[in-house]
Amino acid sequence: MTGFEARPIGRVESPLTDLASAPRQADEGAPTAWLVFDEAVAEGLSGLRVGDQMILLTWLDRADRGVLRVHPRGDTTRPLEGVFSTRSPHRPNPIGLHRVEATAVEGRRVQVRHLEALDGTPILDLKPVLDEDVGRR
Amino acid sequence: MTGFEARPIGRVESPLTDLASAPRQADEGAPTAWLVFDEAVAEGLSGLRVGDQMILLTWLDRADRGVLRVHPRGDTTRPLEGVFSTRSPHRPNPIGLHRVEATAVEGRRVQVRHLEALDGTPILDLKPVLDEDVGRR
Repeated sequence: MTGFEARPIGRVESPLTDLASAPRQADEGAPTAWLVFDEAVAEGLSGLRVGDQMILLTWLDRADRGVLRVHPRGDTTRPLEGVFSTRSPHRPNPIGLHRVEATAVEGRRVQVRHLEALDGTPILDLKPVLDEDVGRR
Repeated sequence: MTGFEARPIGRVESPLTDLASAPRQADEGAPTAWLVFDEAVAEGLSGLRVGDQMILLTWLDRADRGVLRVHPRGDTTRPLEGVFSTRSPHRPNPIGLHRVEATAVEGRRVQVRHLEALDGTPILDLKPVLDEDVGRR
C-alpha cells in the first residue's frame, strides 16, 4: 500500500536542541516555544486567539519507525509494551501530539508554553480542542 | 521543503460509507466501528486493553488539502475562519483526530464507539490519552 505525503507547514522554535535534555512529557518542565508557520498557510491561522486551547501535531523526524515494542518511559526495568499503548516517539508514523495554549499570536508566529518538541521539529497541523477530546460528550 | 511519507497501518471498518451521512463530530450519533490493523504492526498492539482511552489518528484521504479558510461546521451563514481554528477535514495535512475507547480487542481488530470516520479510512496511529491532553497537569 502506498503512503500519503505529510508536508511540513512550519517549524518549532525552541531552546530544546537535543534529545538527551528533552523532557519525556510536557509536564516535566518543557519550555516556552514558538510555532512558526510558513507564509503559504498563514491564512489558515485567522481567528486564532490568545488563550485558545489547541492540539499541535508534529512529525518527529528523529524517531525510529521500525520499532513496535518499547520499555514504557524508557525504563528498561519495565517490560516491553506495544508502542500503541505508549507515547514513545518511536512508532510506524512518528506523529507527535501536544496539547498547547496559545500565549501570544504575532502574525504567523504562535507562542505556546510547556512544549516538549525539539527545535526545528516540523509542524503538520494545529486544531482546536473539542469537548469530546477531553472525554465530555 | 520535501514531505514525509505517512504510511497506513490499518483501516477503519464502519457502516458509514458516504460523506453526506457522516456526522460532523463524534457526539452527533457516530456509530460503532472496528479498527483493523495490518499484520505488520500487530505487535504494536500488545498491552492494549478493553476500556483504554485512546487517540486515533487517521488520514482523511477524501479531504481538499488546498483549503485554508472554511465556514465553521459547514454553515455558510457564518464567516470564513482559518482552518487551524476548526476541525474541518479540509486542511493542508488532513489528519483526523478521534478520541475513542477500546470496547473490544480481538487480535489486531479493535472495536470503538462513536467514531465519525468513513469506512476504509486509513489509520496512521493510536496513542493512549494522557492527563495533559485533557488539560490536567
